[in-house]
Amino acid sequence: MTRLSLRIDFEPSGSALGPGMVQLLERVAEQGSIRSAAISMGMSYRKAWLLVQEMQDTFNGAVVTTEIGGSDGGGTKLTELGTRLLKTYRRIESRAARAAEADLEALAALVKANAAPRRSARRKHSKQT
Amino acid sequence: MTRLSLRIDFEPSGSALGPGMVQLLERVAEQGSIRSAAISMGMSYRKAWLLVQEMQDTFNGAVVTTEIGGSDGGGTKLTELGTRLLKTYRRIESRAARAAEADLEALAALVKANAAPRRSARRKHSKQT
Repeated sequence: MTRLSLRIDFEPSGSALGPGMVQLLERVAEQGSIRSAAISMGMSYRKAWLLVQEMQDTFNGAVVTTEIGGSDGGGTKLTELGTRLLKTYRRIESRAARAAEADLEALAALVKANAAPRRSARRKHSKQT
Repeated sequence: MTRLSLRIDFEPSGSALGPGMVQLLERVAEQGSIRSAAISMGMSYRKAWLLVQEMQDTFNGAVVTTEIGGSDGGGTKLTELGTRLLKTYRRIESRAARAAEADLEALAALVKANAAPRRSARRKHSKQT
Protein backbone atom coordinates (compact mmCIF):
# COMPACT_ATOMS: atom_id res chain seq x y z
CA MET A 1 0.00 0.00 0.00
CA THR A 2 1.20 3.49 -0.79
CA ARG A 3 0.26 6.27 1.58
CA LEU A 4 0.45 9.96 0.86
CA SER A 5 1.03 12.39 3.76
CA LEU A 6 0.55 16.09 3.21
CA ARG A 7 1.97 19.10 4.92
CA ILE A 8 0.42 22.44 4.05
CA ASP A 9 2.61 25.50 4.62
CA PHE A 10 1.01 28.91 4.75
CA GLU A 11 3.52 31.49 3.59
CA PRO A 12 4.67 34.01 4.63
CA SER A 13 3.15 33.33 8.06
CA GLY A 14 5.42 30.33 8.63
CA SER A 15 2.49 28.34 9.98
CA ALA A 16 1.50 24.92 8.76
CA LEU A 17 -1.04 22.13 9.00
CA GLY A 18 0.32 18.60 8.90
CA PRO A 19 -0.64 14.96 9.41
CA GLY A 20 0.14 14.86 13.15
CA MET A 21 -2.13 17.81 13.91
CA VAL A 22 -4.95 16.39 11.87
CA GLN A 23 -4.66 12.93 13.36
CA LEU A 24 -4.79 14.56 16.79
CA LEU A 25 -8.05 16.33 15.89
CA GLU A 26 -9.45 13.04 14.63
CA ARG A 27 -8.52 11.20 17.82
CA VAL A 28 -9.96 13.95 20.02
CA ALA A 29 -13.22 13.68 18.08
CA GLU A 30 -13.21 9.89 18.57
CA GLN A 31 -12.07 9.76 22.18
CA GLY A 32 -13.46 12.94 23.70
CA SER A 33 -10.19 13.83 25.41
CA ILE A 34 -6.88 15.39 24.45
CA ARG A 35 -5.13 13.16 26.96
CA SER A 36 -6.57 9.93 25.54
CA ALA A 37 -5.92 11.15 22.01
CA ALA A 38 -2.29 11.88 22.89
CA ILE A 39 -1.81 8.47 24.55
CA SER A 40 -3.30 6.69 21.53
CA MET A 41 -0.72 8.43 19.33
CA GLY A 42 2.20 7.74 21.68
CA MET A 43 2.50 11.48 22.22
CA SER A 44 2.90 13.39 25.47
CA TYR A 45 -0.04 15.46 26.68
CA ARG A 46 2.22 18.50 26.55
CA LYS A 47 3.09 17.91 22.91
CA ALA A 48 -0.59 17.38 22.03
CA TRP A 49 -1.53 20.56 23.83
CA LEU A 50 1.18 22.50 21.98
CA LEU A 51 -0.14 21.19 18.65
CA VAL A 52 -3.64 22.32 19.60
CA GLN A 53 -2.26 25.75 20.56
CA GLU A 54 -0.38 25.96 17.28
CA MET A 55 -3.53 25.28 15.28
CA GLN A 56 -5.45 27.80 17.35
CA ASP A 57 -2.78 30.42 16.70
CA THR A 58 -2.69 29.66 12.98
CA PHE A 59 -6.46 29.77 12.47
CA ASN A 60 -7.21 32.27 15.24
CA GLY A 61 -9.90 30.33 16.99
CA ALA A 62 -10.54 27.38 19.27
CA VAL A 63 -10.31 23.99 17.58
CA VAL A 64 -11.42 22.05 20.68
CA THR A 65 -13.87 22.83 23.44
CA THR A 66 -14.25 21.18 26.83
CA GLU A 67 -17.53 20.74 28.66
CA ILE A 68 -17.51 19.87 32.32
CA GLY A 69 -20.22 17.63 33.67
CA GLY A 70 -23.62 17.44 31.96
CA SER A 71 -25.63 14.35 31.17
CA ASP A 72 -22.79 12.71 29.23
CA GLY A 73 -20.16 13.59 31.85
CA GLY A 74 -18.56 16.27 29.73
CA GLY A 75 -15.46 15.84 27.65
CA THR A 76 -13.55 17.53 24.86
CA LYS A 77 -15.03 17.97 21.40
CA LEU A 78 -13.98 19.64 18.22
CA THR A 79 -15.38 23.09 17.56
CA GLU A 80 -16.88 23.94 14.21
CA LEU A 81 -13.45 25.27 13.16
CA GLY A 82 -11.72 22.08 14.33
CA THR A 83 -14.21 19.93 12.42
CA ARG A 84 -13.77 22.07 9.36
CA LEU A 85 -9.98 21.76 9.43
CA LEU A 86 -10.21 18.00 9.85
CA LYS A 87 -12.70 17.55 7.01
CA THR A 88 -10.93 19.92 4.64
CA TYR A 89 -7.54 18.30 5.23
CA ARG A 90 -8.95 14.79 4.70
CA ARG A 91 -10.65 15.95 1.50
CA ILE A 92 -7.38 17.48 0.24
CA GLU A 93 -5.69 14.20 1.04
CA SER A 94 -8.19 12.05 -0.82
CA ARG A 95 -8.36 14.35 -3.84
CA ALA A 96 -4.58 14.50 -4.01
CA ALA A 97 -4.27 10.72 -3.80
CA ARG A 98 -6.86 10.24 -6.53
CA ALA A 99 -5.22 12.80 -8.82
CA ALA A 100 -1.81 11.19 -8.37
CA GLU A 101 -2.98 7.58 -8.36
CA ALA A 102 -1.24 6.40 -11.54
CA ASP A 103 2.09 7.95 -10.57
CA LEU A 104 1.89 6.61 -7.03
CA GLU A 105 1.28 3.13 -8.42
CA ALA A 106 4.24 3.52 -10.76
CA LEU A 107 6.50 4.39 -7.81
CA ALA A 108 5.10 1.55 -5.72
CA ALA A 109 5.84 -0.85 -8.60
CA LEU A 110 9.47 0.29 -8.58
CA VAL A 111 9.68 -0.41 -4.85
CA LYS A 112 8.01 -3.78 -5.26
CA ALA A 113 10.52 -4.74 -7.96
CA ASN A 114 13.12 -3.95 -5.33
CA ALA A 115 11.59 -6.23 -2.73
CA ALA A 116 11.63 -9.19 -5.13
CA PRO A 117 14.81 -11.28 -5.39
CA ARG A 118 16.98 -10.15 -8.28
CA ARG A 119 19.74 -11.57 -10.48
CA SER A 120 21.95 -12.69 -7.62
CA ALA A 121 20.99 -14.23 -4.32
CA ARG A 122 21.95 -10.97 -2.62
CA ARG A 123 19.36 -10.10 -0.04
CA LYS A 124 18.56 -6.64 1.20
CA HIS A 125 17.55 -5.91 4.75
CA SER A 126 13.87 -5.08 4.68
CA LYS A 127 11.45 -4.21 7.43
CA GLN A 128 8.56 -6.49 6.52
CA THR A 129 5.89 -6.15 9.18
CA MET B 1 1.13 31.45 -0.86
CA THR B 2 0.13 27.98 0.18
CA ARG B 3 2.60 25.19 -0.40
CA LEU B 4 1.87 21.49 -0.34
CA SER B 5 4.65 19.07 0.66
CA LEU B 6 4.18 15.37 0.07
CA ARG B 7 5.65 12.34 1.72
CA ILE B 8 5.01 9.00 0.06
CA ASP B 9 5.23 5.95 2.31
CA PHE B 10 5.58 2.54 0.76
CA GLU B 11 4.06 -0.05 3.05
CA PRO B 12 4.92 -2.58 4.33
CA SER B 13 8.53 -1.89 3.36
CA GLY B 14 8.76 1.10 5.69
CA SER B 15 10.55 3.08 3.00
CA ALA B 16 9.50 6.52 1.82
CA LEU B 17 10.12 9.30 -0.64
CA GLY B 18 9.83 12.84 0.69
CA PRO B 19 10.48 16.48 -0.16
CA GLY B 20 14.07 16.56 1.16
CA MET B 21 15.14 13.61 -0.99
CA VAL B 22 13.55 15.03 -4.09
CA GLN B 23 15.00 18.49 -3.56
CA LEU B 24 18.39 16.86 -3.19
CA LEU B 25 17.98 15.09 -6.54
CA GLU B 26 16.96 18.38 -8.11
CA ARG B 27 19.98 20.22 -6.72
CA VAL B 28 22.36 17.46 -7.82
CA ALA B 29 20.92 17.73 -11.35
CA GLU B 30 21.41 21.52 -11.24
CA GLN B 31 24.82 21.63 -9.59
CA GLY B 32 26.52 18.45 -10.74
CA SER B 33 27.73 17.55 -7.27
CA ILE B 34 26.28 16.00 -4.13
CA ARG B 35 28.51 18.21 -2.02
CA SER B 36 27.33 21.45 -3.65
CA ALA B 37 23.75 20.24 -3.54
CA ALA B 38 24.09 19.50 0.19
CA ILE B 39 25.66 22.91 0.91
CA SER B 40 22.90 24.70 -1.01
CA MET B 41 20.35 22.96 1.22
CA GLY B 42 22.23 23.66 4.46
CA MET B 43 22.71 19.92 4.83
CA SER B 44 25.86 17.98 5.71
CA TYR B 45 27.48 15.91 2.98
CA ARG B 46 27.00 12.86 5.16
CA LYS B 47 23.27 13.48 5.50
CA ALA B 48 22.96 14.01 1.73
CA TRP B 49 24.85 10.81 1.07
CA LEU B 50 22.60 8.90 3.48
CA LEU B 51 19.52 10.23 1.69
CA VAL B 52 20.97 9.09 -1.64
CA GLN B 53 21.69 5.66 -0.14
CA GLU B 54 18.18 5.45 1.24
CA MET B 55 16.68 6.15 -2.18
CA GLN B 56 19.00 3.62 -3.78
CA ASP B 57 17.93 1.00 -1.23
CA THR B 58 14.26 1.78 -1.69
CA PHE B 59 14.31 1.67 -5.49
CA ASN B 60 17.15 -0.82 -5.82
CA GLY B 61 19.28 1.11 -8.23
CA ALA B 62 21.65 4.03 -8.52
CA VAL B 63 19.95 7.44 -8.55
CA VAL B 64 23.19 9.36 -9.17
CA THR B 65 26.29 8.58 -11.21
CA THR B 66 29.70 10.21 -11.07
CA GLU B 67 31.99 10.61 -14.05
CA ILE B 68 35.62 11.47 -13.48
CA GLY B 69 37.40 13.70 -15.96
CA GLY B 70 36.16 13.91 -19.57
CA SER B 71 35.70 17.00 -21.69
CA ASP B 72 33.37 18.66 -19.16
CA GLY B 73 35.59 17.81 -16.17
CA GLY B 74 33.26 15.09 -14.89
CA GLY B 75 30.70 15.53 -12.15
CA THR B 76 27.67 13.86 -10.66
CA LYS B 77 24.45 13.44 -12.63
CA LEU B 78 21.14 11.79 -12.07
CA THR B 79 20.70 8.34 -13.56
CA GLU B 80 17.59 7.50 -15.55
CA LEU B 81 16.05 6.18 -12.31
CA GLY B 82 16.96 9.37 -10.43
CA THR B 83 15.46 11.52 -13.16
CA ARG B 84 12.34 9.38 -13.19
CA LEU B 85 11.86 9.69 -9.42
CA LEU B 86 12.33 13.45 -9.58
CA LYS B 87 9.89 13.92 -12.45
CA THR B 88 7.28 11.55 -11.06
CA TYR B 89 7.36 13.15 -7.63
CA ARG B 90 7.05 16.66 -9.09
CA ARG B 91 4.14 15.53 -11.25
CA ILE B 92 2.41 14.00 -8.21
CA GLU B 93 2.96 17.28 -6.40
CA SER B 94 1.49 19.45 -9.13
CA ARG B 95 -1.48 17.15 -9.77
CA ALA B 96 -2.20 16.99 -6.05
CA ALA B 97 -2.03 20.77 -5.69
CA ARG B 98 -4.34 21.27 -8.65
CA ALA B 99 -6.86 18.71 -7.38
CA ALA B 100 -6.91 20.32 -3.94
CA GLU B 101 -6.73 23.93 -5.08
CA ALA B 102 -10.13 25.11 -3.84
CA ASP B 103 -9.68 23.54 -0.41
CA LEU B 104 -6.14 24.88 -0.07
CA GLU B 105 -7.42 28.36 -0.87
CA ALA B 106 -10.18 27.97 1.71
CA LEU B 107 -7.60 27.08 4.39
CA ALA B 108 -5.32 29.92 3.32
CA ALA B 109 -8.26 32.32 3.63
CA LEU B 110 -8.79 31.16 7.23
CA VAL B 111 -5.12 31.85 7.99
CA LYS B 112 -5.27 35.23 6.29
CA ALA B 113 -8.31 36.19 8.36
CA ASN B 114 -6.09 35.41 11.33
CA ALA B 115 -3.28 37.71 10.17
CA ALA B 116 -5.67 40.67 9.82
CA PRO B 117 -6.35 42.79 12.90
CA ARG B 118 -9.48 41.66 14.71
CA ARG B 119 -12.00 43.15 17.16
CA SER B 120 -9.46 44.26 19.71
CA ALA B 121 -6.04 45.78 19.19
CA ARG B 122 -4.51 42.50 20.34
CA ARG B 123 -1.60 41.58 18.11
CA LYS B 124 -0.26 38.15 17.50
CA HIS B 125 3.41 37.45 16.97
CA SER B 126 3.90 36.57 13.34
CA LYS B 127 6.95 35.62 11.39
CA GLN B 128 6.59 37.92 8.40
CA THR B 129 9.59 37.47 6.16
